[in-house]
Amino acid sequence: MFRILSQSDAGNLGARRGQLVLKHGVVETPAFMPVGTAGTVKAATFDTVEAAGAEIVLANTYHLMLRPGGGLIRRLGGLHGFTGWRGPILTDSGGFQVMSLAQNRKLTEEGVQFRSHIDGAPYLLTPETAVELQFRDFGVDIGMCLDECTPYPADFPQARLSMELTHRWAKRGRAAYERLRAEEEPGAGAPAAVGAPAAAGAQFGIVQGGMYEDLRRQSAEFIGSLGFEGVACGGVSVGEPKAEMRRIVEVTAPLLPAGRPRYLMGVGRPDDLVHAVASGFDMFDCVLPTRAARHGLAYTRTGSITIKNSRYRDDPAPLDETCVCLACRRHSRAYLRHLFVLGEPSAAILLTQHNLTAILDLMHRIREALDNGCFADWARAFASSLEGKDS
Amino acid sequence: MFRILSQSDAGNLGARRGQLVLKHGVVETPAFMPVGTAGTVKAATFDTVEAAGAEIVLANTYHLMLRPGGGLIRRLGGLHGFTGWRGPILTDSGGFQVMSLAQNRKLTEEGVQFRSHIDGAPYLLTPETAVELQFRDFGVDIGMCLDECTPYPADFPQARLSMELTHRWAKRGRAAYERLRAEEEPGAGAPAAVGAPAAAGAQFGIVQGGMYEDLRRQSAEFIGSLGFEGVACGGVSVGEPKAEMRRIVEVTAPLLPAGRPRYLMGVGRPDDLVHAVASGFDMFDCVLPTRAARHGLAYTRTGSITIKNSRYRDDPAPLDETCVCLACRRHSRAYLRHLFVLGEPSAAILLTQHNLTAILDLMHRIREALDNGCFADWARAFASSLEGKDS
Repeated sequence: MFRILSQSDAGNLGARRGQLVLKHGVVETPAFMPVGTAGTVKAATFDTVEAAGAEIVLANTYHLMLRPGGGLIRRLGGLHGFTGWRGPILTDSGGFQVMSLAQNRKLTEEGVQFRSHIDGAPYLLTPETAVELQFRDFGVDIGMCLDECTPYPADFPQARLSMELTHRWAKRGRAAYERLRAEEEPGAGAPAAVGAPAAAGAQFGIVQGGMYEDLRRQSAEFIGSLGFEGVACGGVSVGEPKAEMRRIVEVTAPLLPAGRPRYLMGVGRPDDLVHAVASGFDMFDCVLPTRAARHGLAYTRTGSITIKNSRYRDDPAPLDETCVCLACRRHSRAYLRHLFVLGEPSAAILLTQHNLTAILDLMHRIREALDNGCFADWARAFASSLEGKDS
Repeated sequence: MFRILSQSDAGNLGARRGQLVLKHGVVETPAFMPVGTAGTVKAATFDTVEAAGAEIVLANTYHLMLRPGGGLIRRLGGLHGFTGWRGPILTDSGGFQVMSLAQNRKLTEEGVQFRSHIDGAPYLLTPETAVELQFRDFGVDIGMCLDECTPYPADFPQARLSMELTHRWAKRGRAAYERLRAEEEPGAGAPAAVGAPAAAGAQFGIVQGGMYEDLRRQSAEFIGSLGFEGVACGGVSVGEPKAEMRRIVEVTAPLLPAGRPRYLMGVGRPDDLVHAVASGFDMFDCVLPTRAARHGLAYTRTGSITIKNSRYRDDPAPLDETCVCLACRRHSRAYLRHLFVLGEPSAAILLTQHNLTAILDLMHRIREALDNGCFADWARAFASSLEGKDS
């Protein structure tokens, strides 16, 4: 399900150009996945998400298991039938949201008991139920194994205990996935081979280990040994300083199985994306482009701008002269500022469309540079274009 | 600027099929104008408003004079340059919003003094400044003359006094418009003839008179004599019972100049639109389709549905099987209910797109029935399709 088309051969970089071949389509990598938490991207419709260039979206198991629930989604044809999104979908396992949103949560060896943050109803999320929800009810292209997202800061013993729990859950999650596959495809045998038919939906494991290189190494080795179709680096972008995040990204990437997709969870600032691609990651998700849009922050090729700033009051230029999005083709900064200041819903709609287009265009340019064998040069030029700017 | 293509000849109806030829395009009538108060349609972008089939939109002088202000709009190329809407625009005069929104307003012979409901800044809106704003700063296709919207209820003496003020303002407003035209087109002479080149922007007068047929007759005669390119019926849909509104609509329409467009202000319920077309009105605006959408009310060909109703929880059908809008082509009622219950912005976006498509499709079917000479039959069938439903 993963083809590496080329690898960066200059500047000692690990960047790869590839393709994910999934149930609902092919995704060119490095790829950014817009976040559609509850089966919808905030302030966007799937038509505009497609128009922005997205090939895959991410949805959240936690939110969807609470509302509308796995059973309803299954009855309506899985997440694709339910949401109307036609391309590939990746769901996270719900572990991260349980820890940040749920009430009265209780972490046990079995899994996480919690109460819905909406109506207090009790739930149990385990490595096994996460598999059932994602692969049986949602019918996703990629489902993530349940992990415990190690918080920041965590001292070494804490981070190790947390990582070890994630490892035990990974083993159970992988076994549950293999049982489900065997049930659904009798005769297919147990472990799914790398490059197995994508029809089944692929399962990704998650490496933890906090900010400790030793633990990251142990975790990458263990998770990498379980046969997952792809491996993610979790537990970054959880409040640590940027330099810490980058260190872990650089350390972890080369430890992950070379022939499988590597997914860096929760990272989405333009400069961080370029850095992570250079380190060898293939997939990314982040709420930042869409959340920033709703807060009036627009990406441009030379850094971001705060649209409510009075300097844009009568600025007839588009957000970014080079952008082809709906907002830039039709509207000025002055108009977008007007909409934002008035709190018009169209401000969020247009800025979301712009930021998604901008971030997906960035990925497109990254892929183009890789295709042309000039990624190292391109990345240097990109960095200097942002110098001194808040990207 | 107005061509009548055909007139209903059956069932004693006054319905007309026509075309408005305006600065920024041709509008087929009977026409519904989506409301874009502050230069944007709520929870929509102009791409989707166009996709829904809108040929003209309405914007509010009151809101735009406060933010971003006439001067800024003028500097950015008028309302078209500022907003990016390419087709015709009609602006109301601001009179209605001054009375309902402004603080410390003081109605005098001169005009309305008021303070902004946003920052308390003082403003003066007169028949003359309304003309300057709309025709010089905004550059609209159609501008409305300043009137006093007679409140409901109003006794006969109140309604008469209010109507008389509207008449004196209409005279001043028309004179101001003619002066502005003479300045801008030296040699064009004074009063704009019916059918004058649309390049100048057309000015519509407004008939008042409360719920009194005598006053409506006087007002139609007076306003009709001033040379306005079109005439509107104001002071309806202001809280009066439906039967009262319909009585005034039926009485007023035939009193308005037959060869000019007749605009019924603020009416937009599907059954009321069909009734008003049958009475002889050509143009309509109303916040209802877009406001209802944001409150989860979706129009269908057989009445409206409240999407949060639990009966739609697992309903795989689109809002309306016959609708071609974005929401109906792609999404089920179950999904739209999910988005609405969660308060996702995409619920308002998709339902707005649907309701605009539905109301503009209704106008399309009305025009088709008129083109085919079967409007009376069509209107009867339409009424029975809604029987017992909350349309």
